[in-house]
This record gives sequence, C-alpha cells and structure tokens, in this order.
Amino acid sequence: MKTDGVPVCHHVPLCVPTVKKAKLDGPQEKFNTYVTLKVQNVKSTTIAVRGNLPCWEQDFMFEINRLDLGLTVEMWNKGLIWDTMVGTVWIPLSSIRQSNEEGPGEWLTLDSQVIMADSEICGTKDPTLHLVLLDTRFELPL
Amino acid sequence: MKTDGVPVCHHVPLCVPTVKKAKLDGPQEKFNTYVTLKVQNVKSTTIAVRGNLPCWEQDFMFEINRLDLGLTVEMWNKGLIWDTMVGTVWIPLSSIRQSNEEGPGEWLTLDSQVIMADSEICGTKDPTLHLVLLDTRFELPL
Repeated sequence: MKTDGVPVCHHVPLCVPTVKKAKLDGPQEKFNTYVTLKVQNVKSTTIAVRGNLPCWEQDFMFEINRLDLGLTVEMWNKGLIWDTMVGTVWIPLSSIRQSNEEGPGEWLTLDSQVIMADSEICGTKDPTLHLVLLDTRFELPL
Repeated sequence: MKTDGVPVCHHVPLCVPTVKKAKLDGPQEKFNTYVTLKVQNVKSTTIAVRGNLPCWEQDFMFEINRLDLGLTVEMWNKGLIWDTMVGTVWIPLSSIRQSNEEGPGEWLTLDSQVIMADSEICGTKDPTLHLVLLDTRFELPL
C-alpha cells in the first residue's frame, strides 16, 4: 500500500567526505595543518599533521537532503596561539557522485577566499599553490 | 630629525579580546562549548567548557592596523564528531575602546547568521537566546 505522496520509508542521503592528504607549497617545517569541514551550522576537524605532505585519511559522514548547499573545506596551519588559514575550497553538494565505495579522490587547489552571495558561500577564488586530495561521495540508499 | 612623512618609530596597535563567560539557554548537560576568534585569515580558540554557564576567562592578543576590519566571534558546542554552531557576533575593530586594563566586559547576544557584503563579514543577524561576556580593548601605545 502506498500512502498519498508520503514515502513509506524515508532515507536521508548520507554524505561521506574523506580528507586524504595534501601537497603544500613551502618547507616541511613550516606546516602543522588540520582540515575543517563545514556544512550549514555544523563542522568537524581532522587532527593536525606536520609537514608539507600531510596525510590524514580521515573520513566523516553527515546526513543531508538539501543539495543546494555546499561543503566548505578549510585548511589551517596550527600556531602556538593563532592558527593561520592555508586555503579553502567549496564543494557544491549537487556535484558529489553516488557510490558505496571510497574512490581515489580528486586533487583540489585551495583558494584564499570565499565568494558569498546573499550571505551564503557559493564558491572560492584566488588560488594558492596548495593542493588537497579529497574523496567525497553520497552513499547509495540500500 | 624627522624623515618626510615616515614615522621614526612605528607602533602597530595591539588588540586584546578577553572571552569571559556565557549564559546559554538550555539544560546544563546540553553544552560543552568553546569560542573561536577570527580576524582576517587567523583564528584562535578557547578550551571547551561544560554547562550552560561556561567560564573561560581567556585572553588573546593580536597586532592589527586596519580598523576597517572586524573580529568574528563564534561559539561552538562540541560534539563527538560534529560541532554545532551556538551563535556568532561580529565586532567592528573601529568600535573597540582604548585601555591598558581589562574591564568588566559587555554582554553580547549571539546571532545565528553572519551578514556579508562583498565577501566580507559586516555584521550578524537573527538573535539567539545565548549571551557571551566579552571585554575587548586596544592597548595604548607606550
């Protein structure tokens, strides 16, 4: 039996970003970096890893059913008191593939600045020489 | 001797924000909060403190000579993996008093959202029921 327009069983799509590693431009002793992932009003953070070729291989997951939003990725260099932004990249959720398996990921250039429209992030600009390897996918519903 | 238009001794103003405490709306077991301070591309963070009346009494300092910018204050509730934004407030640096001594601070209402203009924060909106006590000052040059 199917009820009028109301799904009997509702699956909220599960987004699974994996922060793999980075190639940072500069001497290895300059960097002790971590990555934050933000979507709407929640965020999560990797551990900080030293060097210009940091490797995190850390994955995250969150449920979301608004494909008009995006995932904001920020990389920060940890300081004694103040952390410095290394770069940022914004991934529209609508661009994310569906898959049940982690893939090789994609090397993304980190930008210096976010672009806003109506107080919402809609992109980034001013590329840096830093790259991050991310794999992001939506789990297929069972 | 005075060189043409070039100050002989240059003092960069030192901004000293102190994150004192907060009054959060909700049951005490709901909160384990920390505060981040951001200005341009640097940020710093307090420790996380439990309860609806958290007390940090933590001060920060940074040198800045651009009074057209602002200090972005964000409060986050720490989760197991995902942290949730409690609220945010933006303080224009031009509004900050000069003093060599910490004051009693000011209770500020945390808002839900930032307001952007030309990809720069210029304010916040949509008040929450959460309050934070901040003291922010510029050290007077000696």
